[in-house]
Amino acid sequence: MSNESAYSEGDLRNTGMALKHDREWDYELERIVDAIEERDAETVGLQFPEGLKRRGPKVADDLRELTDEGTTIMLSGQPCYGACDLDTYLMKRTDVFVHFGHSPMKNTDKVIYVPLFSNVEIRPIMEESLDTLAPPEETPGVGLVTTAQHMNRFDEMREFLEGEGYEVHTRRGDDRLTHEGQVLGCNYASADVEADQILYVGGGKFHPLGLAMEHPEKTVVIADPVNNVVTVADTEKFMKQRYGAVHRAMDAEKWGVIFCTKIGQGRWETAQEIIADNDDAYLITMDEVTPDRLQNFDMDAFVNTGCPRITTDDGPRFHKPMLTPGEYEIAVGNEPLDSLEFDTFHGTW
Amino acid sequence: MSNESAYSEGDLRNTGMALKHDREWDYELERIVDAIEERDAETVGLQFPEGLKRRGPKVADDLRELTDEGTTIMLSGQPCYGACDLDTYLMKRTDVFVHFGHSPMKNTDKVIYVPLFSNVEIRPIMEESLDTLAPPEETPGVGLVTTAQHMNRFDEMREFLEGEGYEVHTRRGDDRLTHEGQVLGCNYASADVEADQILYVGGGKFHPLGLAMEHPEKTVVIADPVNNVVTVADTEKFMKQRYGAVHRAMDAEKWGVIFCTKIGQGRWETAQEIIADNDDAYLITMDEVTPDRLQNFDMDAFVNTGCPRITTDDGPRFHKPMLTPGEYEIAVGNEPLDSLEFDTFHGTW
Repeated sequence: MSNESAYSEGDLRNTGMALKHDREWDYELERIVDAIEERDAETVGLQFPEGLKRRGPKVADDLRELTDEGTTIMLSGQPCYGACDLDTYLMKRTDVFVHFGHSPMKNTDKVIYVPLFSNVEIRPIMEESLDTLAPPEETPGVGLVTTAQHMNRFDEMREFLEGEGYEVHTRRGDDRLTHEGQVLGCNYASADVEADQILYVGGGKFHPLGLAMEHPEKTVVIADPVNNVVTVADTEKFMKQRYGAVHRAMDAEKWGVIFCTKIGQGRWETAQEIIADNDDAYLITMDEVTPDRLQNFDMDAFVNTGCPRITTDDGPRFHKPMLTPGEYEIAVGNEPLDSLEFDTFHGTW
Repeated sequence: MSNESAYSEGDLRNTGMALKHDREWDYELERIVDAIEERDAETVGLQFPEGLKRRGPKVADDLRELTDEGTTIMLSGQPCYGACDLDTYLMKRTDVFVHFGHSPMKNTDKVIYVPLFSNVEIRPIMEESLDTLAPPEETPGVGLVTTAQHMNRFDEMREFLEGEGYEVHTRRGDDRLTHEGQVLGCNYASADVEADQILYVGGGKFHPLGLAMEHPEKTVVIADPVNNVVTVADTEKFMKQRYGAVHRAMDAEKWGVIFCTKIGQGRWETAQEIIADNDDAYLITMDEVTPDRLQNFDMDAFVNTGCPRITTDDGPRFHKPMLTPGEYEIAVGNEPLDSLEFDTFHGTW
């Protein structure tokens, strides 16, 4: 997408819609109500990611007011961590199913995606990032990436950098990504550009960490518009933690190989290959991968073929080493130690 | 079922099968292997309840040895708390699906149920229970109930009591129960017998508590053959806790009404009726009902229409009051305070 109006759907200021409860976000109620009326829907399912779940009841209230008495609104209580993480039970059993807070991973009529773009200003933090980026006269190229909730400002970001004299390199990653310049916690293909430095505009530590791991030859500058800080991604501490897990797993006699049953998080071939090659590996299927659920299995180490975030972010919370598929290959001696890299996920489902 | 041989399937001593890893249980490998061969199965799913999950890898090893190279064995990593709690994802996607540790809730060709009967002796604890039961010359009748894992000894229990001079009253509960005299944590219909005292043979506190709540006019004697203690069920502490939750929920402005999506734990009409009657009630759908998952919803109280154990056993772990459907009716003033009773669950799915 190449002009700002293309992103206006989720931007409250560009719609006339007044929400009683929260002026920061546009829940695109008109689009949802249109779908309800068109399909004569009796049941409507709403799915919010964890951080937005508390907004569900208000959105349900608004929809109740705008629709017939007979419409049943259901809120998904399943944990949700991405566009890869649809509540398929609710999706299959409701006439209209709305997934809030993420951009589409796949085109499907079954799901209405409402992205919920952030309205935080990005210009101040972009200005601050100039002190950390190499200046254009020295390093003219800069790659630009951001997360789904700031995509509505992507052209503004690009224009700012161009105005400062940079050549801005962007690309759309792969099928897993909706927008040019978008990154996911599990996919940084949009940063595969011809530039020695990458500017990441967004919050959190996880995304830029993966970015820096995936592109060790590039400097990754993090401009966080929510916490208003500019930093350079540092992978050292993270690498130490990963090598620690690999070393602890080297003595494992029994391996649990996790296949995640969530619609967009399964890597069946990867799981199958490990099992086929190792008599001491057992396939365990589950949707949510949590320490509690694995506690009851008598395993010495685990390999997670599901969401990479589970391994790299939650890893230390598990009672036994939890490795990525690549780390597993190192631990069992199939690959050298220095082949360690960030686990990423490509394709959709 | 009326004679002991009917239960011999799950009783290791009555089979010639030697298990390398655990002589206490009979996993009925022959029956499973027969099904694998008959169906030319490529994928086999194994589901164990929480307490037995660690046995999964050994059972998988044994099955690997007994079947072709090409057979993929998968262990369900989903939490499992009963015959009502099938891993439907795995069930639908495997050629043979085995559910261990519970008796069938419904006849279906999709599932091979392997009950895993306990081999603990029941005679010593039955003898001890005579000190607590009213003697037969005073109160001739006694109801007899037990849980799935001791069902293989049910006739032995009955014969013992008859030998002591009691009239033993038993019945099969309803569709939800497989065997005469069997109780579930959510269903005590088998104790609806003409007797003033009930002997419950089994472990745990939850089952006899529900039993005593459901039958307040009867004395419930608990003979626990695992911990080797005989007690009388006391509901007072439990009742106080339940009334406390009801009182705290009386001021609730927003209600979360949980509909559980597990195959055997959904009470859709109950959930729907609450929503239809109360504009401040919101329907939340989920499979596992955990404190973590509800933390993100901004509700003042919850009603759980799923597994009764969640409310009555886990209830205090939730950050807001968690009520049974009956308790909800009291909290909103539709029913009097003294209508409080144990939540039970009838029918299958």
